Amino acid sequence: MIRTLYWENNRLFLLDQTKLPHTIEYVECRTYTDVIDGIKTMKVRGAPAIGVSAAYGMALGELAGEDMDVIGDEIKSARPTAVNLFWAVDKVLDLVSRGKSAVDVAIEMEKDDVAINKKIGEYGNSIIDDNDTILTHCNAGALACAGYGTALGVIRAAHEANKNIDVICDETRPVLQGARLSVFEMQQENIPVRLIVDGAAGHMMQKGEVDKVIIGADRVAKDGVANKIGSLMVALAAKRYDIPFYVAAPMSTFDFENNIFDTIIEQRLPEEVLCINGKYISKKQTNVENPAFDIVESDLITGIITEEGIKKPL
Amino acid sequence: MIRTLYWENNRLFLLDQTKLPHTIEYVECRTYTDVIDGIKTMKVRGAPAIGVSAAYGMALGELAGEDMDVIGDEIKSARPTAVNLFWAVDKVLDLVSRGKSAVDVAIEMEKDDVAINKKIGEYGNSIIDDNDTILTHCNAGALACAGYGTALGVIRAAHEANKNIDVICDETRPVLQGARLSVFEMQQENIPVRLIVDGAAGHMMQKGEVDKVIIGADRVAKDGVANKIGSLMVALAAKRYDIPFYVAAPMSTFDFENNIFDTIIEQRLPEEVLCINGKYISKKQTNVENPAFDIVESDLITGIITEEGIKKPL
Repeated sequence: MIRTLYWENNRLFLLDQTKLPHTIEYVECRTYTDVIDGIKTMKVRGAPAIGVSAAYGMALGELAGEDMDVIGDEIKSARPTAVNLFWAVDKVLDLVSRGKSAVDVAIEMEKDDVAINKKIGEYGNSIIDDNDTILTHCNAGALACAGYGTALGVIRAAHEANKNIDVICDETRPVLQGARLSVFEMQQENIPVRLIVDGAAGHMMQKGEVDKVIIGADRVAKDGVANKIGSLMVALAAKRYDIPFYVAAPMSTFDFENNIFDTIIEQRLPEEVLCINGKYISKKQTNVENPAFDIVESDLITGIITEEGIKKPL
Repeated sequence: MIRTLYWENNRLFLLDQTKLPHTIEYVECRTYTDVIDGIKTMKVRGAPAIGVSAAYGMALGELAGEDMDVIGDEIKSARPTAVNLFWAVDKVLDLVSRGKSAVDVAIEMEKDDVAINKKIGEYGNSIIDDNDTILTHCNAGALACAGYGTALGVIRAAHEANKNIDVICDETRPVLQGARLSVFEMQQENIPVRLIVDGAAGHMMQKGEVDKVIIGADRVAKDGVANKIGSLMVALAAKRYDIPFYVAAPMSTFDFENNIFDTIIEQRLPEEVLCINGKYISKKQTNVENPAFDIVESDLITGIITEEGIKKPL
């Protein structure tokens, strides 16, 4: 399994996920602003991986003698939707105030993340049947975490349990995390995988070719889940064709305080949509809406797979 | 309005739609096989435009002294889903057998198509309110027809009636007809338009930003409509958020004989999905499902706008 990130000689190395699957290249972060840049430009992405990276960003700030509260706020502003980012920064601040070093907290958080994901995989494996075809959206894999993955962690666990499974990945425009990352992860593990365009998910379900849907989450609240744009439409199709729709996420993704519709949906640059592989698909000045996430309402969700077990929608 | 095709000096000129919106270039078809190639490679696409092109293909065959039944079968096999292709070839064969020239039939069919679309626009305009935001998928525009368009014809008619409307175009992967063609057509007409990825349509509807959905059709049958892949998921989202979902199509798209689920869904090459603007988004050998169309079931459809009025789903 390729490492999403690693800490070495007091520096954070982030796998540059914008270059996958063709090039495997790590960027070295020497300062907390390098980490912010890595998060903003989506070199590292996925709620849990953003959380761990943020913790290492705090560690880099601490080593440089920065004001931890100030850089905490700066790091939190890198992306607005994934709750893990806020959770990780606050956790570092809390433990630092109690005498721990940020470096130690970050290292521990990285280890915990993998352990949590394995636990999610264990619980998730219980809902996977032999010969299931599982559809997933975006990448909630090892690459979205410190390792192993949430949604793809469940798939990995089922595969490790010798279940004969088959995966369908939505390509997940605009950033194509499904095509570039999830397909890649499945191929690395020799798990049978097929790629489809996002618009084809409904058709595959209508044809009876999908047994389960599992996605990740950027925020789980009592009335729904925020996840990568397109998740809602997948959930609606699953509902229509009576296909169980699961969300896999660690408890650190849960937001018990706010309603899900209070989530700030990040709007990203038009170029992400307009320009694919260096070429414009519409005129450069075209108006674009580019929401990075959408909301899957609770009634569309069969269960939320966490390290504490499978929860009914809150 | 750019011409989708024209007939000049006994040759058919097809706008090469694979090069839009950046390059406006016509390919000259001297033989019926050139026309088949143009249809297969989607230089010309859209059910009505395929029908008219097929008729001109028959005309080219007639001028070359080909066996009309033989080339009719060959032309019909260019693409399997759009019913207009079969309808057009059969219409030419029928009228030729009654003494008409195929050239005359094709020229008439081209004229009729534009007249029919204007009629569709007229009926369709009656369901558009001032200040409506209309979402459309793929391209059912002038470029999908001999001119004016079906779904975009309705939008054009509302715009011509001085209604203040606003359009959202799904980019429509894999071939991006929404981004490349529909956005382009709207920009040519100065109709306000925004581009989104396919996965964002549900989010826009959930947010209350869409008043109507109008799409085209490749086949209309009694239990549903076959249209570009992704249409089903748009329809499911429209249903969820109580947004009227209309299909605009000429009567030549109606198939009264078969069930919609008997439609042959064309599977196109993996490269259409895998390779965008010359670069692979997953490894070249990745397994891909690339269905070009899907089925929108009748209960999801508010009405079908035809040149004979707005029909309830059959």
